[in-house]
Amino acid sequence: MSVIQELLKVVLVEPAGALNVGSIARLCENFGVSELRLVSPRCDPMDPDAKKMAVKGTKLLNQAQSFDCLLDAISDCNRVLATCGRIDHGDIPLFEAEKALPWLAQGSSSEPIAIVFGREDRGLTNQELLLAQKVLTLKTSPNYPSLNLSHAVAIVLHEFQKYNDQIHKIKKNNYEIKKSANPLEVENCLEDTKSLLLDIGFLMEHTAQPRMAKIKALLNRAEVKPEEVSLIRGILRQVRWAIKQ
Amino acid sequence: MSVIQELLKVVLVEPAGALNVGSIARLCENFGVSELRLVSPRCDPMDPDAKKMAVKGTKLLNQAQSFDCLLDAISDCNRVLATCGRIDHGDIPLFEAEKALPWLAQGSSSEPIAIVFGREDRGLTNQELLLAQKVLTLKTSPNYPSLNLSHAVAIVLHEFQKYNDQIHKIKKNNYEIKKSANPLEVENCLEDTKSLLLDIGFLMEHTAQPRMAKIKALLNRAEVKPEEVSLIRGILRQVRWAIKQ
Repeated sequence: MSVIQELLKVVLVEPAGALNVGSIARLCENFGVSELRLVSPRCDPMDPDAKKMAVKGTKLLNQAQSFDCLLDAISDCNRVLATCGRIDHGDIPLFEAEKALPWLAQGSSSEPIAIVFGREDRGLTNQELLLAQKVLTLKTSPNYPSLNLSHAVAIVLHEFQKYNDQIHKIKKNNYEIKKSANPLEVENCLEDTKSLLLDIGFLMEHTAQPRMAKIKALLNRAEVKPEEVSLIRGILRQVRWAIKQ
Repeated sequence: MSVIQELLKVVLVEPAGALNVGSIARLCENFGVSELRLVSPRCDPMDPDAKKMAVKGTKLLNQAQSFDCLLDAISDCNRVLATCGRIDHGDIPLFEAEKALPWLAQGSSSEPIAIVFGREDRGLTNQELLLAQKVLTLKTSPNYPSLNLSHAVAIVLHEFQKYNDQIHKIKKNNYEIKKSANPLEVENCLEDTKSLLLDIGFLMEHTAQPRMAKIKALLNRAEVKPEEVSLIRGILRQVRWAIKQ
């Protein structure tokens, strides 16, 4: 997990559902978020429902600080992104994930950054949106755009992690090198296959070439591995043996 | 919402939490998914908890069909993507969202496609993973990768919508759709293969499963086409004939 992610605070404004608060604590743990902050929660974060949903996020849930107002909750943050699912946001510009999240990830590498989520039923007020430097909106079905709060958090944290990884090039070049069978091995195996298929009358001399080309195309598309070539050769041998019996 | 999304089926294997099933019905509605399918649910989808969470996804919840096994639930689907959060998936290759979801979105524009999610506690079995053509994994914190089921669904559906939108833009520019064999066809063909390989003594009952899994992995990697499945079946028939002579 990158430094940035450890500096990320998730802020919930007046959450009313204990199930949601617990679920979000778990999500914070899932995505390596360092801190959950609550602004005037309308439910008890220590409710058994919250604890049940938090699972391994229980520590974050227990440590979640409560604030009286949003401004207090974000006062130490360098970049703040608010989220909005409403359509009556006036002339506050909305940004999609691919614009807003890279911007957030580029925030200071030593000061905290925050993502703010609103109330389950009516989101953040326009005044609250204006406390953030940018406002994010998620694409959903126009017929029913309203996401459950914890699902919105899941999507945003996953997207954030993706952009954060890209930006910090955390992906070390430890791509596993897939070893393919060498072309000669594949060719020899196909020759054996062809010879068997001719012997059993599946191929005729004049149809052999195009049909074998199809089998070769399949193996090439799969980037066939050396051990798979051996497997095919084993089958060929056994078929020959069975025919002789 | 695009045509593809309307053809998308979300399949849950043995879900145990009514809250999860209800939440997922809501998510299906949020992302314009046409159908929710349940395989041997371990909870009652009509439980008040499920209904409470479904909100405007109640219609999808009420219409959710139950199936006895995963293969039945995906038998009409052209492309099937399974999801995996476990690390003990053997040599079944895992794909990240940016590879797996565009592939799924490129599925036929008239036949159904499916995304399969496993049990809350232990996901899908390796055998179930092998029924799908590709397996998706989501990036989370290495310290606590296990997502709540409905949050995994939220992330995957949001990502799918994004890639689907992109691909539809490309498709308008005459993008060619590759037609893959449907999973049932592949499964039946592999059953025939297995039966022949047992008969000729290439497989023993106790080695059959892992070896067949290797063959299946090869076909999946190649995104085997319907005409290639027919070719393999033709070879099997001819081998049987040759052995009888």
